[in-house]
Amino acid sequence: MARSADDREAAEKLWGMIKGVRICMMTTLDENGILHSRPMATLPHAGFDDGTLWFFTRADSPKVHELKTHWRVNLSYADPDKQDYVSVSGVAETVRDRDKIRFLWRDILSTWFPQGVDDPDLALLKVSVDQAEYWDSPSSAMVYAYGYVKAKITGEPPKPGDHAKIAFQ
Amino acid sequence: MARSADDREAAEKLWGMIKGVRICMMTTLDENGILHSRPMATLPHAGFDDGTLWFFTRADSPKVHELKTHWRVNLSYADPDKQDYVSVSGVAETVRDRDKIRFLWRDILSTWFPQGVDDPDLALLKVSVDQAEYWDSPSSAMVYAYGYVKAKITGEPPKPGDHAKIAFQ
Repeated sequence: MARSADDREAAEKLWGMIKGVRICMMTTLDENGILHSRPMATLPHAGFDDGTLWFFTRADSPKVHELKTHWRVNLSYADPDKQDYVSVSGVAETVRDRDKIRFLWRDILSTWFPQGVDDPDLALLKVSVDQAEYWDSPSSAMVYAYGYVKAKITGEPPKPGDHAKIAFQ
Repeated sequence: MARSADDREAAEKLWGMIKGVRICMMTTLDENGILHSRPMATLPHAGFDDGTLWFFTRADSPKVHELKTHWRVNLSYADPDKQDYVSVSGVAETVRDRDKIRFLWRDILSTWFPQGVDDPDLALLKVSVDQAEYWDSPSSAMVYAYGYVKAKITGEPPKPGDHAKIAFQ
């Protein structure tokens, strides 16, 4: 139902809000069904053209282990002052490619990873976004459901039921 | 290991951070394993002495249906300006008690529920907190793991493994 120009605009709006907040709370599901979240810094220069978001992580961290059992995450971006809220649902995978790690590394990350880019425990989390919603005021209903955008970017058709499911979240 | 005075102080700190942010992103798990979040206003005058947090909701909303399949939620409170982040894990239940609804109702809620306190679709979500962590700077590790606090409030002993699990999240 949404048109291509609207989809592109929505994806740009979504990415703009994500960049504006930058630190999300990443929620994972543990083996006991308990949902945990923790602040994670989105890598802002990695772009969003392919519908992916990138994060640095420790390869042996609890969240990485949780992702082996349940590979889906939610990323929530909140800016209470602007009343901006974003919910991103996606599939997370651990990437250990050293070239990619070096490409995305910035010196400020040494706060979290003092051993730097050659730290053997340093890894990336790649989140492939398949659904997202945003609210630009707490009194508004959800203003856009991302999902068709991803289908257009990847060339994959939306799965049956995807739109209705997104529309009624 | 944590002492009672420390626990009480941590619970007060936690509640202070929650009240300061107020609007959390509530994450639920749907029947397909997808994690969704949406902004939810925490009722600030309901207190936290019993380790519960309260929210108004529509009784027929998707999240209420999701809670029938998986009753656990994560609440993330983020204030990027202050660099405050809180993750709360708990069990959610729908409460339709009209006296409780009237007790917690405030006129500002008519923005979301224009029919007011007698709206038959109006309900409460009660979240019983069993674990929480907070960070008061993005460069810090988790600064406190709540969990013993709840055990002390309720009189229930902490479950075996709880502390280690919390401490190493």
